[in-house]
Amino acid sequence: MARLSLNQRTCAEWTLREAIDGCLSAGLSSLGVWREPVAHVGLETARRWVEESGLRVSSVCRGGFLTMPEGSLRRASLDSNRAAIEETATLGAPALVLVPGGLPEGERDIDAARRRFLDGVAALVPEAQAAGVVLAIEPMHPIFAADRGVVSTLEQALDMAEQFPASAVGVVVDTFHLWWEPGVEQQIARAGDRIASYQISDWITPLPPDALLSRGMVGDGHIDFEAFTGWVARTGYAGDVEVEIFNADVWATPGAEVVATMSDRYLERVQPWLG
Amino acid sequence: MARLSLNQRTCAEWTLREAIDGCLSAGLSSLGVWREPVAHVGLETARRWVEESGLRVSSVCRGGFLTMPEGSLRRASLDSNRAAIEETATLGAPALVLVPGGLPEGERDIDAARRRFLDGVAALVPEAQAAGVVLAIEPMHPIFAADRGVVSTLEQALDMAEQFPASAVGVVVDTFHLWWEPGVEQQIARAGDRIASYQISDWITPLPPDALLSRGMVGDGHIDFEAFTGWVARTGYAGDVEVEIFNADVWATPGAEVVATMSDRYLERVQPWLG
Repeated sequence: MARLSLNQRTCAEWTLREAIDGCLSAGLSSLGVWREPVAHVGLETARRWVEESGLRVSSVCRGGFLTMPEGSLRRASLDSNRAAIEETATLGAPALVLVPGGLPEGERDIDAARRRFLDGVAALVPEAQAAGVVLAIEPMHPIFAADRGVVSTLEQALDMAEQFPASAVGVVVDTFHLWWEPGVEQQIARAGDRIASYQISDWITPLPPDALLSRGMVGDGHIDFEAFTGWVARTGYAGDVEVEIFNADVWATPGAEVVATMSDRYLERVQPWLG
Repeated sequence: MARLSLNQRTCAEWTLREAIDGCLSAGLSSLGVWREPVAHVGLETARRWVEESGLRVSSVCRGGFLTMPEGSLRRASLDSNRAAIEETATLGAPALVLVPGGLPEGERDIDAARRRFLDGVAALVPEAQAAGVVLAIEPMHPIFAADRGVVSTLEQALDMAEQFPASAVGVVVDTFHLWWEPGVEQQIARAGDRIASYQISDWITPLPPDALLSRGMVGDGHIDFEAFTGWVARTGYAGDVEVEIFNADVWATPGAEVVATMSDRYLERVQPWLG
């Protein structure tokens, strides 16, 4: 389980301290952190805890939300992203995950929103390079295109990322978001060293009523993790494999039990194909 | 409203007779029919009612569901499609809508399912040509990729359709399914005379709890109907514009009221851009 990482939102009830201890107890060596629980204890405390734990921080969630037009909201979002870049560097994580953001209130031009997101990424590249942090664009399932993430395919994310150095802008490859994409195998190959994070959760049916909480435990749904993981491995990806599951049933389960189940599933369905 | 068509599922409580009368009362000139309500009164009665009404039948829903492997289920599905082609021809409709079908139980290879759907289309082409019916492949929003429609983009549907004569295989352009697709404007232009049906409904947020019933009334959501309709019109598309809404609130509203609202929205948001 040397490459298995717990994304904090999978055990949403856990504080940062509990998440660190939970990873250590379960024999994991990596943790994907969210900014809010880090802020709750303070960045310096979080940094010290992580260092003392010996865990890697596989990624920081999340920056992005850069689809709005010029104005105070956009300036505030850019400032928040700059702070997030610093936090990512301080915690020693390789990548800051960028959730693109949805359509601004009342706007229906998705291409314009996509262009503004890309402009926002461009504005952050110098800071990311200075800090040694990769901005990881997360293409999101089209179920979220209106209200959360206007970048809808890995192909589109790569069209954006390739406008910048690979040391500054990469992509998140998340099975839940991308499993359906026509030609995704070729896009993963194209991504190569742009893959800044590999995240896994399953697409389950019937889809749970709250679209935001519709991700399933690896192995409970329709995704071919063996094939997907093999495609990622063939790029030479050597990073962590983060389990990120937003699901009310998972959140109602004790964290240690969730981590045990995800570890079993990882060993069955993912690890053997990591090469 | 010379090109506005009511898809029967928008007023799901109406029988075929009520749908015909509802269209006539509201001044519509076209109806998209479903096979089940046609079968309920018998094909010959349905044909006569339609003929006497003077309405066009804009499309027949639905064929397809061809993702399963060889065996009795697949043979039954092909037979059902053959019957649907005959019904489409008898009713004088230009197109039979093909819903691709989802992943067979326990299967996780979506590319294999896509190939089997395409093989099924190929098997039906001779009958479609003989009957003068276009098989209209419906690319479906990826929210349905697992359980209903493995063809996920207009680009992918066109890659399939272009393997056959345009007189035999076309595509459905449905705003709900395609509004988010990167490059959809270019794909619509590419589609040209392959567009066998233009269907409209909106993407609303928050998404209703039942994904199958998540479509909204035109104008209630995030889709740019003006732009989308303009792209379709620029291909020279001269067919009907079908309103297809699966939504529990719409179904709970009296049919005449639904038709009045959809007519108003069509005149405001769609008709002026039809060229």
